[in-house]
Amino acid sequence: MEIKIMKNILDRNQNKADEVREILRKKNVLMVNIISSPGAGKTTLLERTLEHFAGRFRTGVVEGDITTDRDAQRLKKFNIPIVVINTEGGCHLDSHSISKVLGSFDLDNLDILFVENVGNLICPSQFDLGETFKLAVISTTEGDDKPAKYPMLFREARAVLLNKTDLIPYTNFDLNNFRSDLDQINARIPLFEISCTRGDGLTEWYGWLSGQVSLI
Amino acid sequence: MEIKIMKNILDRNQNKADEVREILRKKNVLMVNIISSPGAGKTTLLERTLEHFAGRFRTGVVEGDITTDRDAQRLKKFNIPIVVINTEGGCHLDSHSISKVLGSFDLDNLDILFVENVGNLICPSQFDLGETFKLAVISTTEGDDKPAKYPMLFREARAVLLNKTDLIPYTNFDLNNFRSDLDQINARIPLFEISCTRGDGLTEWYGWLSGQVSLI
Repeated sequence: MEIKIMKNILDRNQNKADEVREILRKKNVLMVNIISSPGAGKTTLLERTLEHFAGRFRTGVVEGDITTDRDAQRLKKFNIPIVVINTEGGCHLDSHSISKVLGSFDLDNLDILFVENVGNLICPSQFDLGETFKLAVISTTEGDDKPAKYPMLFREARAVLLNKTDLIPYTNFDLNNFRSDLDQINARIPLFEISCTRGDGLTEWYGWLSGQVSLI
Repeated sequence: MEIKIMKNILDRNQNKADEVREILRKKNVLMVNIISSPGAGKTTLLERTLEHFAGRFRTGVVEGDITTDRDAQRLKKFNIPIVVINTEGGCHLDSHSISKVLGSFDLDNLDILFVENVGNLICPSQFDLGETFKLAVISTTEGDDKPAKYPMLFREARAVLLNKTDLIPYTNFDLNNFRSDLDQINARIPLFEISCTRGDGLTEWYGWLSGQVSLI
């Protein structure tokens, strides 16, 4: 019975996601659904990326949070459209909530819409938001076993950002283990090894992302 | 409609949790439901704690994981009863799955049953497993804003372990911010600042935990 209910929820989510995707396609907007554990560095990644693309791409952000608007506050300085969705305990965003806030953006004047999902490595991977692609962000301090232990996101995502590489020397994170587990799950997925606080590896990520915009 | 379904699921979970709690109470078993984000250090905490209490308390472990038995493999060396629950995509354990595996333990010869929940800061806080108490584990590398952003667990837990304090010098984690946010949510909750890799702060945690056993 619970399986049937879950199927209904996912079906309805999928229908609305298809609508969202069609709207964005018509307006040539790239939507990036950013998914990670709590504290893996989604907001810091956004700070870096928004700063880099300022004046080059027209960007907007949907901030998904259980409560508070702390992440949105951190992005205020960029003077771009930001909408906060508080899930009030909900563990993921869904396509209905995205559909509702889409009208708050001037889609004719937008190139990239970043969606920072709720910090959760599991549930957000199951809900299509109508995004162009899912982006997996994982931090070295979480351990090198995360692709093997949480394979769904790594199967679904179009790229993986491995953040906090500056902390590798202080942990037992083994990059070879990480890469080989990821290979088992999604062999051809691009992996960017970055440090958002130190700036390492970000140029390649920027290049890849601008390539995705040009494909829209 | 979805709210009603969720209420039904939670009601049924609560009934079964009450049954589990009653069984454990009769057998004088302390059950600790350990909840954290992926990679915050639950398994390393268990390694340390099991090693410390070997020969003093009779312990057992339920390992909740989406897939794989990697965490259980890490604990094999302790020669204690360990049962793995693979949720096959599910984002949390529930009381029904705990109830089913309870028979695998010799409850007459058990003092503490540790349950390592699925790595997720959100959904596991909503499902009572029949535990004696929930234990929140959070790591410094996740950032000092986590209690404010994910308040549910910090409201529900009986103690907070702040792990990876050895990494504070390499991050922008501010202990005062963390403490003051936690104070707002749960002013009297015990907070242990620990490093499971370096061993810092663990003695106080061991002392507190043995106090909980004596209360059973």
